Amino acid sequence: MTDHPSAFAINCTLKPSPAESSCDRMLGLIADALGEHHVETETVRAVDLHIAPGVTSDEGQGDDWPEVREKILDAEILVLATPIWLGNPSSVCRRVLERLDAFLGETDHRGRMISFDRVAVVATVGNEDGAHNVSAQLFQALSDVGFTVPAGGSAYWVGEAMGSVDFKDLDAIPEKVSETVSTLAGNAAHLARLLRSDGYPAS
Amino acid sequence: MTDHPSAFAINCTLKPSPAESSCDRMLGLIADALGEHHVETETVRAVDLHIAPGVTSDEGQGDDWPEVREKILDAEILVLATPIWLGNPSSVCRRVLERLDAFLGETDHRGRMISFDRVAVVATVGNEDGAHNVSAQLFQALSDVGFTVPAGGSAYWVGEAMGSVDFKDLDAIPEKVSETVSTLAGNAAHLARLLRSDGYPAS
Amino acid sequence: MTDHPSAFAINCTLKPSPAESSCDRMLGLIADALGEHHVETETVRAVDLHIAPGVTSDEGQGDDWPEVREKILDAEILVLATPIWLGNPSSVCRRVLERLDAFLGETDHRGRMISFDRVAVVATVGNEDGAHNVSAQLFQALSDVGFTVPAGGSAYWVGEAMGSVDFKDLDAIPEKVSETVSTLAGNAAHLARLLRSDGYPAS
Amino acid sequence: MTDHPSAFAINCTLKPSPAESSCDRMLGLIADALGEHHVETETVRAVDLHIAPGVTSDEGQGDDWPEVREKILDAEILVLATPIWLGNPSSVCRRVLERLDAFLGETDHRGRMISFDRVAVVATVGNEDGAHNVSAQLFQALSDVGFTVPAGGSAYWVGEAMGSVDFKDLDAIPEKVSETVSTLAGNAAHLARLLRSDGYPAS
Repeated sequence: MTDHPSAFAINCTLKPSPAESSCDRMLGLIADALGEHHVETETVRAVDLHIAPGVTSDEGQGDDWPEVREKILDAEILVLATPIWLGNPSSVCRRVLERLDAFLGETDHRGRMISFDRVAVVATVGNEDGAHNVSAQLFQALSDVGFTVPAGGSAYWVGEAMGSVDFKDLDAIPEKVSETVSTLAGNAAHLARLLRSDGYPAS
Repeated sequence: MTDHPSAFAINCTLKPSPAESSCDRMLGLIADALGEHHVETETVRAVDLHIAPGVTSDEGQGDDWPEVREKILDAEILVLATPIWLGNPSSVCRRVLERLDAFLGETDHRGRMISFDRVAVVATVGNEDGAHNVSAQLFQALSDVGFTVPAGGSAYWVGEAMGSVDFKDLDAIPEKVSETVSTLAGNAAHLARLLRSDGYPAS
Repeated sequence: MTDHPSAFAINCTLKPSPAESSCDRMLGLIADALGEHHVETETVRAVDLHIAPGVTSDEGQGDDWPEVREKILDAEILVLATPIWLGNPSSVCRRVLERLDAFLGETDHRGRMISFDRVAVVATVGNEDGAHNVSAQLFQALSDVGFTVPAGGSAYWVGEAMGSVDFKDLDAIPEKVSETVSTLAGNAAHLARLLRSDGYPAS
Repeated sequence: MTDHPSAFAINCTLKPSPAESSCDRMLGLIADALGEHHVETETVRAVDLHIAPGVTSDEGQGDDWPEVREKILDAEILVLATPIWLGNPSSVCRRVLERLDAFLGETDHRGRMISFDRVAVVATVGNEDGAHNVSAQLFQALSDVGFTVPAGGSAYWVGEAMGSVDFKDLDAIPEKVSETVSTLAGNAAHLARLLRSDGYPAS
């Protein structure tokens, strides 16, 4: 354990690397803001990996989930970033959540759900409408599988109804986005420190 | 029965009359567009009435729902309009849906759910984000309680993320909104005519 | 065009064939019920195919979506079946919806959205809780991309809270499920006939 | 400030007192479990009050929200309990959330959102299906307006699909519900203590 908590971010864009990703731009903002609180962030793009369909922690040969899972458990903060399609998180994001489902049946050495004492936050970008619904789905799933959601645990940007502008192409980051990201990062880092030094009780 | 189907619209704003309402502006567009298909629209603002909490068709003295219910059943098209708060339909809108729940237990003279052969469409406005989630909740509820949802059954406008502009204050109606409203109205009127002349079978 | 409308069903289970699937059991009931209305149903299991991530109608080499898309457009009724994971449709189902998103930009010879005049219904199964949320998401997406949702357009089964029984293992089909399936099939077949003989207007 | 955090619970049933309420039964379990962690719970039934439609902290004469708001701010833990109607939280619950929306514009003496350092959990009961969707909506709203959601922040019970049994009428509390309530209470009490002694930073 280092002196500071660390963060692991999963970019759930549909576009394989090296295509530019609006999620990446939002994750960059969050990583910078977490850095101000001495939290380093490692990022992975889920669609570059083969995350097999299923709901166990290892779906066998060729499944890249086990290494993603390790990185999630090695960090104190999980940042889940997704684009919006038809008002909802991407299929890649739902795949990640399905694999996290396995935590419901796994315990740590104290008999608690294996993910306990970790903080999760959500980053959402889209041309238009859907961010609140995305946060809702993700917060529910993440709390269910053992993560803690800080106050202001969501950062997002979407354009006007039926818009077609991408977050990656904005000339400047809207001030409200910057403020939200700043609060999210400060709260996530604070909460991760609290829970690392004084974790949830065993039941 | 007149020659043409008629529409009944419920404005689920939180603001009592005569306060201006963004939902009203959207409903005006829809009423005009339906008018081009010879469909007349009557509108009510739900918060001006006392719609009692409950899930029956008549919650007793002082309950204004029975008259709203009659107007719904007298029309071939229901237009449900709601603002967005915290990414969701208003409490007034959820109240209306709760009262529609009673249709699940009521049958017409042919033994079908009492609302069958009626079409429902959704109109959503908000400063920002939430329209797809609103459509989702409303379509699910409306299909469950017996309405038919046409292709393109939702018209909406929201501003950019964390915006504060109201639809009622826009200088001009965005072209995409006009197009959506036009399709919604044409499809709703067409479907209402089809179902009026040849309704669902008794089971 | 035959005398009768046809149905195409997509099973969005996470389990590749030949694993047993609760969705398959529900789809079997629906296919039988549609058969009573002279509608034949062809079924595909999406996870057996390679449906590439993306939001166009053809994501290039190795993408199996184009053939699925053809079958959807060849049928008058789409039956979308999904299991519930963490209270939501499967990642496989969200992938299918993402690919349907392309319909928003495609028109038929009359200038209408290419999917118009087709009916869509939803089938949901899970150990527990989530069916209404699934219907909501699917109805919204399906109406947005041009399908029409009939009255009672959803059939589902879930067990008691935190249950672990699968629909495929139930000794008998609950009567309420049978009734729902019967109504869904009758309404879908009726609506598909209406729209096939008298489709939505061009705008 | 006493030695121990306190909890305030809002029952969002549609039924005015003294009607029996399934939410009350669930809230009783949670209050007992919180009591084991030296947390006392006060409960109010929202439908017994006049909570005016609106999104400010005081909608004027006859509005009972200001006193509810004070109790929320006086406690370290908010327990929000709602029945499920048509797969969603009650209109009474959405009304409560709409009033909490005002927190977005209110700050404490340190310039933080006024609700910071408080924990929120969710209790959901219904005859059938909808609990995950309820948790999702409530977690999103509660995180947005400044509350922190602990790991396992939701307790719920629903019956089998299309069931009609009420939680208040169950002969015994299912063991899974008891376990969930126990974890929820332990985590909420722990997190409330952490945040009370070491709150979020000012931004």
